[in-house]
Amino acid sequence: VSHFNVGLIGAGTVGGGVVKIIHHQEGFFTNGLGLSISLKRIVDKRKDRFAELPVGSAVCSQDPDDILKDDSIQIVIELVGGTTFAKDLVLAALAAGKHVVTANKALLAIHGPEIFETAEKNGVSVYFEAAVGGGMPAIKTIREAMIANDISSVKTIINGTCNYILTRMERDNHSFEDVLREAQKNGFAESDPTMDIEGGDTGHKVAIMASLLYGGYVPFEKLPIEGVSRITDQDIAYAKELGYRIKLLGIIKQTDGRGLDVRIHPAMLPLDHILASVANEFNAVLLEGDSVGQILLYGKGAGELPTASAVVSDVIDVVRNLESDTPLRISMGFYSRGNEIPLQALDEITTRYYLRFTVVERPKVLAPIAAILGDHGISIASVVQKERQSAETVSVVILTYPALDSNLQRAIAEIEDLDAVRKKTQVIRIEE
Amino acid sequence: VSHFNVGLIGAGTVGGGVVKIIHHQEGFFTNGLGLSISLKRIVDKRKDRFAELPVGSAVCSQDPDDILKDDSIQIVIELVGGTTFAKDLVLAALAAGKHVVTANKALLAIHGPEIFETAEKNGVSVYFEAAVGGGMPAIKTIREAMIANDISSVKTIINGTCNYILTRMERDNHSFEDVLREAQKNGFAESDPTMDIEGGDTGHKVAIMASLLYGGYVPFEKLPIEGVSRITDQDIAYAKELGYRIKLLGIIKQTDGRGLDVRIHPAMLPLDHILASVANEFNAVLLEGDSVGQILLYGKGAGELPTASAVVSDVIDVVRNLESDTPLRISMGFYSRGNEIPLQALDEITTRYYLRFTVVERPKVLAPIAAILGDHGISIASVVQKERQSAETVSVVILTYPALDSNLQRAIAEIEDLDAVRKKTQVIRIEE
Repeated sequence: VSHFNVGLIGAGTVGGGVVKIIHHQEGFFTNGLGLSISLKRIVDKRKDRFAELPVGSAVCSQDPDDILKDDSIQIVIELVGGTTFAKDLVLAALAAGKHVVTANKALLAIHGPEIFETAEKNGVSVYFEAAVGGGMPAIKTIREAMIANDISSVKTIINGTCNYILTRMERDNHSFEDVLREAQKNGFAESDPTMDIEGGDTGHKVAIMASLLYGGYVPFEKLPIEGVSRITDQDIAYAKELGYRIKLLGIIKQTDGRGLDVRIHPAMLPLDHILASVANEFNAVLLEGDSVGQILLYGKGAGELPTASAVVSDVIDVVRNLESDTPLRISMGFYSRGNEIPLQALDEITTRYYLRFTVVERPKVLAPIAAILGDHGISIASVVQKERQSAETVSVVILTYPALDSNLQRAIAEIEDLDAVRKKTQVIRIEE
Repeated sequence: VSHFNVGLIGAGTVGGGVVKIIHHQEGFFTNGLGLSISLKRIVDKRKDRFAELPVGSAVCSQDPDDILKDDSIQIVIELVGGTTFAKDLVLAALAAGKHVVTANKALLAIHGPEIFETAEKNGVSVYFEAAVGGGMPAIKTIREAMIANDISSVKTIINGTCNYILTRMERDNHSFEDVLREAQKNGFAESDPTMDIEGGDTGHKVAIMASLLYGGYVPFEKLPIEGVSRITDQDIAYAKELGYRIKLLGIIKQTDGRGLDVRIHPAMLPLDHILASVANEFNAVLLEGDSVGQILLYGKGAGELPTASAVVSDVIDVVRNLESDTPLRISMGFYSRGNEIPLQALDEITTRYYLRFTVVERPKVLAPIAAILGDHGISIASVVQKERQSAETVSVVILTYPALDSNLQRAIAEIEDLDAVRKKTQVIRIEE
């Protein structure tokens, strides 16, 4: 059995978790799995972090070169985060012939082609289970368990902050702003929550999954992304009344020659949909394979130990594969810039819609709205009109049958020109 | 890249699915994964099966020796089923130095030690993803993704027939017998459904998972197993009214030195429990790891293509690992007869209970029941007493607080001696 040395760069929350798990499981790796692995060096710019960790025989220092230039280290764990310094580190590690394990979704979503091309050129591999869904084995399931399948669609709830906020809004009847403030106070949301609540984080993870699934490069910058900040407690209440629940979904669907349908937006799910029962900070990925049918993975997508657990399982996988030439075959073959996957334009999708119009309360206000929808070939499945909330206006909620997005956009523009319509229309797609 | 030949024994439903998937995915294996795999020979005693399959260049015949004695075949897929002929085949294949992929849960649960010892002696491995949960990657997740975790508990719904029956009983308000008859007519239940409905099939899968999880041998014959045939539509209706749903659960829990708690029985789950939303023929495994927290896997546990998909992913794994010595390390190290894991006695568990007493309708019938429960230290959490269903008797339903099983058994025996109690008491454990 060969011996493998690991270097860890970044000893913050997740990095600390990695140190703890390796410390706790070392005996099992040796005696249970017959693997010989040491955490040889830990680098972090903050010295004080080392004192709190069970670093064992690992040498701690502050210069990444202590790892990058150490020829006895074969595997580098990058947990620095961000897309600048981390990018340089990862490229340097790969260029030095080291395998890289990372949890950095932004880095892979944005600089994936460069990173994977560098890895390929240097005959090493990049593992990134922790980048997508933390402790939930989404990448392993796609790469290995579902390898005998064509995957026709993926629907995923993969941002814990958004899911926590939407769950609490429904449970407590609170506004988005109130729940966000509370979440920030309790550490469930960042002080700058933009990347989470506006869907960027979900977009990074979806771009990585789509790239992996379809053997090419799905550029993050080209994805249509809508976040959850525009969802009101009123929408959540209407959804519930109509038998639906609102979730921030990442969606990947194969189409017939119209490009890959990839998008991130809030969606209404029927209450008995398996994804509707994913609550609080939990994540889930629902994959549809041609052979296997539906598979759901569910688990904690973030946090110190769940994410660290995925990092450590990647290290074990690297070590298990290191003597064979399997790591290359499995982690490559996708994600090169020359192999960009064409995307379907958002206005070409056909789906059902939830529409909430804010109109002046007066008789026959519904008729012109219905007429305009009809003119654009949009059929109404159901209507709810409630008593007035303010002195002025009332909500009219319409669920449509499947309609082409471009038709819907045109209809909404016409409807918003009506004198009786007083606010921007709320539009939420329905997924079945 | 080396070339690998595969032999398939058994071309029935799942075997046919394997042939179809390999035919369909061959190009991807070669061009996408860079693996060179051929299905070289297919053996089945029924000649007529070959005609319906896209066998490609595979040679079809009826004698297993055509595979077992062919030195160019490195991997044997056993899909014969049963525990006699299949056992001889698997042992012969292993003795001939071939790796084995199987979906045969009964074989592994009952003859696991002999099979894994033979594999180890001959330096080959046994892969069995398809034996537990069909297309759901339970084994891979336990063996690889959760490798950095101590797993404290597993709860699983892993028999599609039972789950289908329980789902339909609740949905349609039908009796167990009626739904079973209908399921048999539609092909969702076997003509002899005993192995499914009495929990044996769940027991096989749970024995395999427990053995794998805790690095030893959990003998199937020693597991406490109760099936679902005693569940009535009345129990399902009471459960729903009280906010619960009844599922057949396989449970594995670590205890503090009292042995491993492994059992299979119907259980009441709160409606908002993630496992309560697993409906129809779907399966799920809920794992609790010390680092990762809860992970749920959900998917179709049976059927031609889901199961075949798992078999093919195992073949890919064998091939990927074949040049290194990883397969041994991963598939061995557990399951030897000398390493039997002690089990906790069922009467030592503490849990909450649903109790349904059938009593003569008369004033004060509840008092002596409550008194006996109290005498045995069992506290009542809630009581439902309904109007009489027949001329004679009425149901009294009690949910208890956590109680020791042996105390409960003694209390029930005393209660059934009461003159007012007219039938055997229905006892269902509650899981939170």
